Amino acid sequence: MGITLFEGFTVANPFEQYALIGVLVIAILGLLYAAFLTRQILKEPEGNERMKHIANAIRTGGNAYLRQQFRTILLLIFLVAIFVFFTGWFAGATSAYGNPVWLIGLGRAAGFLMGAVFSALVGYIGMNMALQGNVRVAQAARSSFAQALKIAYRTGTITGMLTDGLGLLGGTIIFIIFFRDAPLVLIGFGFGGTLLALFMRVGGGIYTKAADVGADLVGKIEKGIPEDDPRNAAVIADLVGDNVGDCAGMAADIFESYEVTIVSSMILGLLITATTGQLYWIIFPLLVRAAGVFSSIISTYSVRAVREGENAMKAIHRGYWLAAAISVVSFFFFAFFYCKDMRFFWATAVGVILAIAINYLTDYYTSTERNPVKEIAKATKTGPATTILSGLALGYESSVTAIIVIALSIIASAFIWRDGGAGGQTILYIFYGVSLCGIGQLTLTGNNISMDAFGPVSDNANGIAEMSGLEPKARQILADLDAVGNTTKAITKGIAIASAVIAAVALFAAFYEDYKLDAINLIHWPVFVCFLIGGAIPCLFSSLTISAVGRAAYDIIQEVRYQFANVKGVWEGTVDPDYGKVVSICTRAAQKELLTPALLAIISPIVIGFLFGLEALAGFLAGVILVGQILAVFMANAGGAWDNAKKTIEDGLYGGKGSEAHKAAVVGDTVGDPLKDTAGPALNPLIKVINLVAVIAASMMVVPIAGGGFKPVGFTPVTIGVIVVGLAIIIVSLWLSKRTASFGRD
Amino acid sequence: MGITLFEGFTVANPFEQYALIGVLVIAILGLLYAAFLTRQILKEPEGNERMKHIANAIRTGGNAYLRQQFRTILLLIFLVAIFVFFTGWFAGATSAYGNPVWLIGLGRAAGFLMGAVFSALVGYIGMNMALQGNVRVAQAARSSFAQALKIAYRTGTITGMLTDGLGLLGGTIIFIIFFRDAPLVLIGFGFGGTLLALFMRVGGGIYTKAADVGADLVGKIEKGIPEDDPRNAAVIADLVGDNVGDCAGMAADIFESYEVTIVSSMILGLLITATTGQLYWIIFPLLVRAAGVFSSIISTYSVRAVREGENAMKAIHRGYWLAAAISVVSFFFFAFFYCKDMRFFWATAVGVILAIAINYLTDYYTSTERNPVKEIAKATKTGPATTILSGLALGYESSVTAIIVIALSIIASAFIWRDGGAGGQTILYIFYGVSLCGIGQLTLTGNNISMDAFGPVSDNANGIAEMSGLEPKARQILADLDAVGNTTKAITKGIAIASAVIAAVALFAAFYEDYKLDAINLIHWPVFVCFLIGGAIPCLFSSLTISAVGRAAYDIIQEVRYQFANVKGVWEGTVDPDYGKVVSICTRAAQKELLTPALLAIISPIVIGFLFGLEALAGFLAGVILVGQILAVFMANAGGAWDNAKKTIEDGLYGGKGSEAHKAAVVGDTVGDPLKDTAGPALNPLIKVINLVAVIAASMMVVPIAGGGFKPVGFTPVTIGVIVVGLAIIIVSLWLSKRTASFGRD
Repeated sequence: MGITLFEGFTVANPFEQYALIGVLVIAILGLLYAAFLTRQILKEPEGNERMKHIANAIRTGGNAYLRQQFRTILLLIFLVAIFVFFTGWFAGATSAYGNPVWLIGLGRAAGFLMGAVFSALVGYIGMNMALQGNVRVAQAARSSFAQALKIAYRTGTITGMLTDGLGLLGGTIIFIIFFRDAPLVLIGFGFGGTLLALFMRVGGGIYTKAADVGADLVGKIEKGIPEDDPRNAAVIADLVGDNVGDCAGMAADIFESYEVTIVSSMILGLLITATTGQLYWIIFPLLVRAAGVFSSIISTYSVRAVREGENAMKAIHRGYWLAAAISVVSFFFFAFFYCKDMRFFWATAVGVILAIAINYLTDYYTSTERNPVKEIAKATKTGPATTILSGLALGYESSVTAIIVIALSIIASAFIWRDGGAGGQTILYIFYGVSLCGIGQLTLTGNNISMDAFGPVSDNANGIAEMSGLEPKARQILADLDAVGNTTKAITKGIAIASAVIAAVALFAAFYEDYKLDAINLIHWPVFVCFLIGGAIPCLFSSLTISAVGRAAYDIIQEVRYQFANVKGVWEGTVDPDYGKVVSICTRAAQKELLTPALLAIISPIVIGFLFGLEALAGFLAGVILVGQILAVFMANAGGAWDNAKKTIEDGLYGGKGSEAHKAAVVGDTVGDPLKDTAGPALNPLIKVINLVAVIAASMMVVPIAGGGFKPVGFTPVTIGVIVVGLAIIIVSLWLSKRTASFGRD
Repeated sequence: MGITLFEGFTVANPFEQYALIGVLVIAILGLLYAAFLTRQILKEPEGNERMKHIANAIRTGGNAYLRQQFRTILLLIFLVAIFVFFTGWFAGATSAYGNPVWLIGLGRAAGFLMGAVFSALVGYIGMNMALQGNVRVAQAARSSFAQALKIAYRTGTITGMLTDGLGLLGGTIIFIIFFRDAPLVLIGFGFGGTLLALFMRVGGGIYTKAADVGADLVGKIEKGIPEDDPRNAAVIADLVGDNVGDCAGMAADIFESYEVTIVSSMILGLLITATTGQLYWIIFPLLVRAAGVFSSIISTYSVRAVREGENAMKAIHRGYWLAAAISVVSFFFFAFFYCKDMRFFWATAVGVILAIAINYLTDYYTSTERNPVKEIAKATKTGPATTILSGLALGYESSVTAIIVIALSIIASAFIWRDGGAGGQTILYIFYGVSLCGIGQLTLTGNNISMDAFGPVSDNANGIAEMSGLEPKARQILADLDAVGNTTKAITKGIAIASAVIAAVALFAAFYEDYKLDAINLIHWPVFVCFLIGGAIPCLFSSLTISAVGRAAYDIIQEVRYQFANVKGVWEGTVDPDYGKVVSICTRAAQKELLTPALLAIISPIVIGFLFGLEALAGFLAGVILVGQILAVFMANAGGAWDNAKKTIEDGLYGGKGSEAHKAAVVGDTVGDPLKDTAGPALNPLIKVINLVAVIAASMMVVPIAGGGFKPVGFTPVTIGVIVVGLAIIIVSLWLSKRTASFGRD
């Protein structure tokens, strides 16, 4: 007896039968654990009326935003789903396994919708848990550090477990249903998740930083009042922003990273399975991921401060190392006893080492204890200009080290898989190895998200405490948690970027293998030209998102100024300002600014592919990956370092708050904000959306020829139509978004 | 009777005989014209004693710097020449034309030295003419706008004519001597010029911006005294810096661009000549360049203000358009009557269009009349952070448009040369077309340099006027000239970057053709890995040069502060500060900081090539070109826009000098300074040095195999030694340069 798959293929090996069932069980277990934690959190006390009132306002704002966001993109998602259906139809024509084209099309479209819904769900629930957790953490901080830490961390764990559970569930189900045709469907699943994450990252990023920059520019800089001062009309929007950006956006994005690494390794694994017949090429990544989920459950539950006041980072790290140990043992176990091929172990272990190296580098460049941040802090003494310059130099340097680490992991993978497999298909094996490196790197996603989401929850709790005037002791506990949150946030960002590059490289190889390209030869002029244009895309995208923050922030500044000047009692603090007005300005602005960058990401690879062909499209992808990676790391680290340099000064260095050094540090921090929380993080899903659109849409750019292989579809009226309409949409939307000036307006 | 070339080949076609002689005559004519202008300038009056005294101090400082610089790099140039000799020896072994290997080695080394000496000479003479011109322009401004304009412009023309004359002379002579082996030697000539330009750009860039930032931070920001205030000990160093950076560095760099475009088109042209036997593939670029020199002579001489007070830009533009018209007519003439192939005309015309497009874009992004600068100016109203953010968004956007323009010129070239030539060598023809685009683009180098050098001369004249207290009328005239100079400077920078990319793409193709690579296939893991590492190089280089400015500026700040505090009478203005001390600090600092980035540029392609092979090295080059181009354009335009935004505010916008908006604008300008004048411009020679080192050193990385083609030399004790020593040098020099903190120090 074996598990009979939809396609009619039977999994005969009993271990593999149990393994597949086990993976599903563990995925569901992860989800149940999330539900269990949710119940636990919701039982905690919410504090006094003032706190509840504020928390409620934030909750209302956050949910209003997400509802608006989902409404905005609904039509677009629907249109893209139809497009995905047709690409699946075309791709199905190349399937050798007898599935009808409509089934592949339907499966791909359904996969796409499932990916999008899962990603949205993770974002939605993640944010809502943070919105429930924030006030409870604030309340807990009034009595106990350990309790506050536990609630904040577990709030994040819920999102982490959702990510793990849904990501694993989706991939495994598609595999069981479509088996050898699964690559054609999985790609839809990956695309859905990534596209939604792009929307959530861009929208959330613009929202959070527009509110933050807007609130700071009027509050801290113009009026000289502290952050989170309740008289500032933008302060609730700022707190909402932390949730929609750092929780919803981040959660959707990490879900997508988790999902795309598994999708890319399954696609490459299935290509190998197609020639070798060995199922472990595809089951190994699923098993490894399941082991990761299992170790995350154990280790996150273990995270608690052993005694009152213990360093929070220590407790969190203990959990992390425990999970890492369990995972690596499982890699070994599966590689040795199941695959009987130690290359699997080494490849995933490289991923873990990559994760550790990236953690170390991020910590080096952004921690207050290390030289780079100390240097920026010193540079504040000679004013904002030197502060900015030293941050730029640091940012560029950090992107160099990140590239070297990623290059080393690819080299390691190439070394491990140098013998390839039967039939001399070394390229396929090497990039399968790269994808396993991504699997290894993101094994501990559950822990990473717990650490990351922890930051905005503490930050929000801090804001609630400030606004409701909690006692100093609670404030101090929350400030400590907040500082730890800054470091964990930076680390997750580093991991996310590195995993984006690794996943994109694997997809790049999948593109090459799927369409049987002869080469991606840079000396062919279309390849070189598209490679240059590909490099321009992340620049254009960053330029758009940075100015979008400027435009939105400007609208907020106007409103806050107006309320200070014209609403009686606001400045005196006797009347609450109209927080809701600013929240709805933010919501509208973020929606408006969302579309242009997203359309650019979806349409540009399609236009390039139809205009210049598949080989040139691959060159385009390479340009996007390289420049996207450089900008993303540059922005994340420069931004994080400026932020922490400001923190060290606020802790009393060089005259502390109010000194000239502090003013310079605030400038650095404000410049860094849209870089590290809007433009930079949005580059992760951008890189992958573009790669996935290329793989998906390419089926329409070629026609299969007899005897295998493809030839370009050429310039038909339809393709010319697509090119013209695509270019027109990009140009019109760029023009629309450029109509209004950004940071500078009269 | 024909001209018998050294190699024994006879040029039989009488037109070609006269053409070659004509090119030489015009090259010499250009040099004579430079000599004639020099005599003219030196005859002009130098003004009063105070002016002479100041001019003398600047002159002494500038020359002391260059002497020190040449001394620093002498040993390195000597060592590199030996290396170049051996690469020529190896390359000579592949020559099919019977020249002995020692002759090729010697020729290449001699070419290298000639290139280096020419480049140094252009820089040296260019700077010295500016140093003679500055005080004479200041004196002339006391009586006449037209006269001041004429002297300033002609001072620049001298450098322009030297560039044209020496570039053309060197290329033609090497061609006449070595003929079909000329590519092997020309590459040495190109490398010499480029390497020296790299030194001049990096050293000069660090010097000028360290002095500028240092002088401003103590003078304008700490003490609140105006720019060029004689009490500031850094003020002479600042004026010296304008000359060593904007004159010497710029002149050497443009010489190198001019030279490398001609070298790359001759190399590709000779490869075509080798199969077709038609000499015009190589003589056409020389003729076009000669026509450019001729038109530059006529048009630059025509530049003068027709009546007192006429817009200076108008007179300069009139000269430019005249030169462009003469050149384009000559392209047509030579293509139609000599080559009888209109593709030559179209290809060079594309270059002219590219130059115009880049001019337009640079003007759009940096002119005070256009929206982008106006937006930055408006952003200053909300403080330095929004000023920086809007500049970053603008910079990224501008690099997108620049890439698109360059991509379009490559597409145009591919379209023009789509039929290739006999034997189906389309790739070679297309990239020859790209190199002709570079030839067309830089035809008007004479005019460009005249326009560019004009800027620092006026700037210096302005400084001298300030320090010697000239009458307001003269000051106004000089300020007007200075403002025009800012625009012309930005334009030349745009041209230089675009030409760097075009030349690098041509060299990239030459590399491919010379070493008969099968492909540059990005799916091969070494190619992809090296492509990523290549992209990291410009980031590392920028990080190094930006922090070098910080380190050097810090030393200057310390010294100026010390003199204000401890030397009696300096602050009161009764005693001159010790200008010489700051000048020598700058000189030493720039020398010290020069080596690490230069070594990185020379050694990294060698290590990559020996470690990963030629195909991977080509991938590395592609990464360098893409990211180098993006960063260079980003830095040049963001920096230029910040500078001009500050200028519009100083002209009275938003409260003018002293307002909060002005303070924010000064921050923007200070951040932009090292980007636009140090890191950015140094990326031009960087891109080309790396490409040239690759082409030169590759002859040692392969061994020719029987029947044509090459195989990798593999890991011998020698190659392993080279890799280890190369890596060691890079790591040690990086470590040394990181030992001291940059902008931030206690």
